[in-house]
Amino acid sequence: MISLYTADYVVTQNDARDIIRNAAVAVEDGRILSVGHTDLLEILFPECRRVDLGHAVIMPGLINAHTHVSMSLLRGYSDDKALMDWLTQDIFPAEAKLTPELVELGAMFSLAEMIRTGTTAFYDMYMHQRSVFRAADKLGMRAVMGESVTQFFPSLTCKDAEAYFDLVRVQADEWKGHPRIRQAILPHAPYTTNPELLTKCRALADETQSLFGMHLAETESETQTCLQNFGMRPIPYCESLGLLQPDSTFFHVVHADERDMELLNEGRCAVVHNPASNMKLASGVAPIGAMLRYRIPVALGTDGPASNNAQNMVREMYMASLLQKVQNLDSTACPAQLALDMATRGGSDALHEPLIGTLEPGMKADFIALDLTTPNMQPVHNIVSNIVYAATGLENKLTVVDGQELYRDGKFLTCDYEALCAEMKAIHGWEKK
Amino acid sequence: MISLYTADYVVTQNDARDIIRNAAVAVEDGRILSVGHTDLLEILFPECRRVDLGHAVIMPGLINAHTHVSMSLLRGYSDDKALMDWLTQDIFPAEAKLTPELVELGAMFSLAEMIRTGTTAFYDMYMHQRSVFRAADKLGMRAVMGESVTQFFPSLTCKDAEAYFDLVRVQADEWKGHPRIRQAILPHAPYTTNPELLTKCRALADETQSLFGMHLAETESETQTCLQNFGMRPIPYCESLGLLQPDSTFFHVVHADERDMELLNEGRCAVVHNPASNMKLASGVAPIGAMLRYRIPVALGTDGPASNNAQNMVREMYMASLLQKVQNLDSTACPAQLALDMATRGGSDALHEPLIGTLEPGMKADFIALDLTTPNMQPVHNIVSNIVYAATGLENKLTVVDGQELYRDGKFLTCDYEALCAEMKAIHGWEKK
Repeated sequence: MISLYTADYVVTQNDARDIIRNAAVAVEDGRILSVGHTDLLEILFPECRRVDLGHAVIMPGLINAHTHVSMSLLRGYSDDKALMDWLTQDIFPAEAKLTPELVELGAMFSLAEMIRTGTTAFYDMYMHQRSVFRAADKLGMRAVMGESVTQFFPSLTCKDAEAYFDLVRVQADEWKGHPRIRQAILPHAPYTTNPELLTKCRALADETQSLFGMHLAETESETQTCLQNFGMRPIPYCESLGLLQPDSTFFHVVHADERDMELLNEGRCAVVHNPASNMKLASGVAPIGAMLRYRIPVALGTDGPASNNAQNMVREMYMASLLQKVQNLDSTACPAQLALDMATRGGSDALHEPLIGTLEPGMKADFIALDLTTPNMQPVHNIVSNIVYAATGLENKLTVVDGQELYRDGKFLTCDYEALCAEMKAIHGWEKK
Repeated sequence: MISLYTADYVVTQNDARDIIRNAAVAVEDGRILSVGHTDLLEILFPECRRVDLGHAVIMPGLINAHTHVSMSLLRGYSDDKALMDWLTQDIFPAEAKLTPELVELGAMFSLAEMIRTGTTAFYDMYMHQRSVFRAADKLGMRAVMGESVTQFFPSLTCKDAEAYFDLVRVQADEWKGHPRIRQAILPHAPYTTNPELLTKCRALADETQSLFGMHLAETESETQTCLQNFGMRPIPYCESLGLLQPDSTFFHVVHADERDMELLNEGRCAVVHNPASNMKLASGVAPIGAMLRYRIPVALGTDGPASNNAQNMVREMYMASLLQKVQNLDSTACPAQLALDMATRGGSDALHEPLIGTLEPGMKADFIALDLTTPNMQPVHNIVSNIVYAATGLENKLTVVDGQELYRDGKFLTCDYEALCAEMKAIHGWEKK
C-alpha cells in the first residue's frame, strides 16, 4: 500500500536543494517512491492512503550523529562545573550505579525525545549498550551504536578486554542484516585507551564488519596529554595506528590544525560537531569552516543529555550556525542551509548510511513534518531559515523511520509513553542507592 | 475571587531562590496573595477557584527586555549577510513599506509568540509604535515601549523632530496611569543621533516622566565612529550628555571596557544582553561577568525577529549561559540560576518595574507554567537546570499577566489566533508593493 504524505512545503535536501510548494511524498515498503507536487502525485497514485499534514513542512529526518542517549538519567544532575570536577565528583560515581535496566530506561527516554523533536537516526556509545540496541529496535529508530571501551577493566559491562571482544562478536551476529541498526566499535578516546587496544579495536571492526568511531581532539588538555605520551597530536597519533579509515567517524574534533584536517581528509573520515556540548563544557569551538574546505564530511550531534541537556537536533542546528558566526565575527558564516545540510546529509556521511538524509526516490523513508501554525514559524519568507533559526523542535508533528510512523499528532506510536514517565518517576534516587 | 494555581513545583525567584514542591500560588485582584505548600494554601483559602497544573513548574513570567516585536513581519526575510548589507539591501527597503496596520499585525504575532513561550513583559522600540501600544493593550501584556527616533527626518512616523516630540507628549497623556504599559523615550543609537537630539530626548523623558533607553556599544564600528566624531567611546559620550540615569536602560552593550562599566554603575543604569542577536549578527560577546561584578543590573532580550529569529526567552536563557561558557572557556560561567535571574529579576530592573520578576506576596501576578511531561523535561534532578538547559519554550501551558490568563492549555484567551494567522497569510508580499 502506498502512503501519500502531503503538506504546504517539502524541503528535499537533494543536490539542488529543491523546495516544493503544495507537495507530497509517496512512500511504499519503507522507501520513498516519489516526491513532487501534490496535484501530480495524486494522479500518479490514485489508490493510496492519504495523510494530509496541512500548513507544515515535510523534510528529511534529522540525524543525531553523536550522543549517549542513556544519560537522560543524568539530565540536570550536575551542571556548571569544571569538566574534571563534573566527571569525577558527579558523573562517574553515578554511572557506577547503572544497571542494564536503568540504561534501557534512559535510552527509551532520549529516543522518545528525539522522536518527538524530529530526529530519525542516531549514533550512540555508552555502557550496557545491549540495552540501547533493544530500545532502538523496539521504538523503531535507525541507529549506529556500540559499547564504549577504555583500557580500564573491569568496566561496568566487561571484566576484561577479551570479554569486550567477545561481546562485540556476539553483537555483530545478533544485529547482522538488521534493516535499521548497525554496530560500531567505539574506543572511548585517545586518553583512555592505549595503542594496543586501539589497534585491536580497528582489527575487530574489520573482522566483524562494524563501523568505527571515537571521541577525538575534544579538549586542549587531550592534545597536551597526547603530545606528552606519544609525541604526536591526537589526529596524527590515530593516523599512526591506522585508525583514519573511510568507515570511521570522529566525535567533537574541536582542536584540529591544518595538518590534522589534511589527515582526516586523506583518511576519508567523517567528523561530528557538537556545538552545544562544546559550549557548555567550555571545550572550545571546532573549525567547521576549515574542515568543510578540506572536504571533510561534517555532521551534527547533541552529545549526551548530561552535557546538552536536550536531545533536540533542531536546537543543535541553531547552535551550530550562531556559534560559527560569533566565533569568526562573520555573520555570513554557517548559513541556515549549511546547518540543515550538516544535520541531514552530513548525518548520512557520519552514519555511513547513504540512503538517508534527503527526500528522493529510492531513499529510505525517514522523514519528519514541522507544523508551521505556531507563531514562531510565521510568516514563511524562507522555510529553511524558519527551520534553523526560529523552530524549537516541538513543532514536529510526524516522525517516520523506514516507512513506519513513530510519532504523529501528539501520540507516540511505538511506545507507551505514559508508562515510561511513570517508570522514570519510580526510579528516582537510583544514583544514591 | 481568589484563584489558586497548583503544580508539582513553584520556582519563586525570591531572594533565597526558594523552590517549593507540591506548591501553590494564590492570586487576587492581579496581585500575588500567597505562595506556599498546596496543603497549607488550601486551608488558608478554602473558597477559591482552583487551577491544577499537574506535573508542571510555576515560575515568574520571563521578561524580554529588548526587542522590536513588529519585525516578525521580516522573520527569515534576510539572514546570513554582513550587517551593513543586511540593513541597507534588505531591512531598510522593506521597512520603508511599513504601514501602521502592518506594524500592528507584526506586533500581534510576536506578542502571541511571547505569550505562547512564557514571556509576560517586554521592552520594545520601533516605528509606528502606536500600533504596538495598541497590540500590547489588547493582548494584555506588560510593556515598556516607545517610538524609536533618529536625527534623520522625515521618519516613517514623524515629519520632523517637533512632530516626534509632540507625539511623545500625546502618548504620555494617553498611557499615563495604565496598569501595564509605560512609555519610554528611545533615541535609536549614538551613531544615528546627534548631541542636540539626545539632550532633548533626555529632557523629554524628565518632562513626560517617561523611561529612557537606547541601543549602545553594540558593535566595534560604533565605538570607532564615536571616537572619531566625539573623541570618546560611546558610554563616556552618553555620560557627557547626562544620559546615564537610574531610569535608563541600554540595549546590547557588547563593547564595554572597565571605565565604561564604572560609568554605567555610577549612573545606576540597567543593561540588556542579547546573546542570540549578538551571535547571529556577529557583533561579539558582552562582558556579562564583569558587568555583574560592577553591580550593573543585567537583563536578557531577544532583539527583533529579523535577527534572532524567535521571540523565545527560554531559548535566550540557554544562549546566554552557553555563550559565556565558551567565550570564557569556563564551564562554571553563567550558571543556570544566573541565566534565569537575568530573565526575571534582571528584567524587572530593566523595565524599572520592581513588582515583577519574582513570585512573592504583594507582587504583580505575572507568571507562567512549564509542562514537565515532555521527554526533555524529565527526570527532574534540578528544576532550574531543566528550565534553562532542556526546555524549548513550547512547554509553556499557562501565561498570566496582572492576574489575567492570556494563554492556557493550547488556547490564546485574548486574541483570535486563527484570524491573526489568516491575516498574516493575506498580506504576503507586502514588502514588494
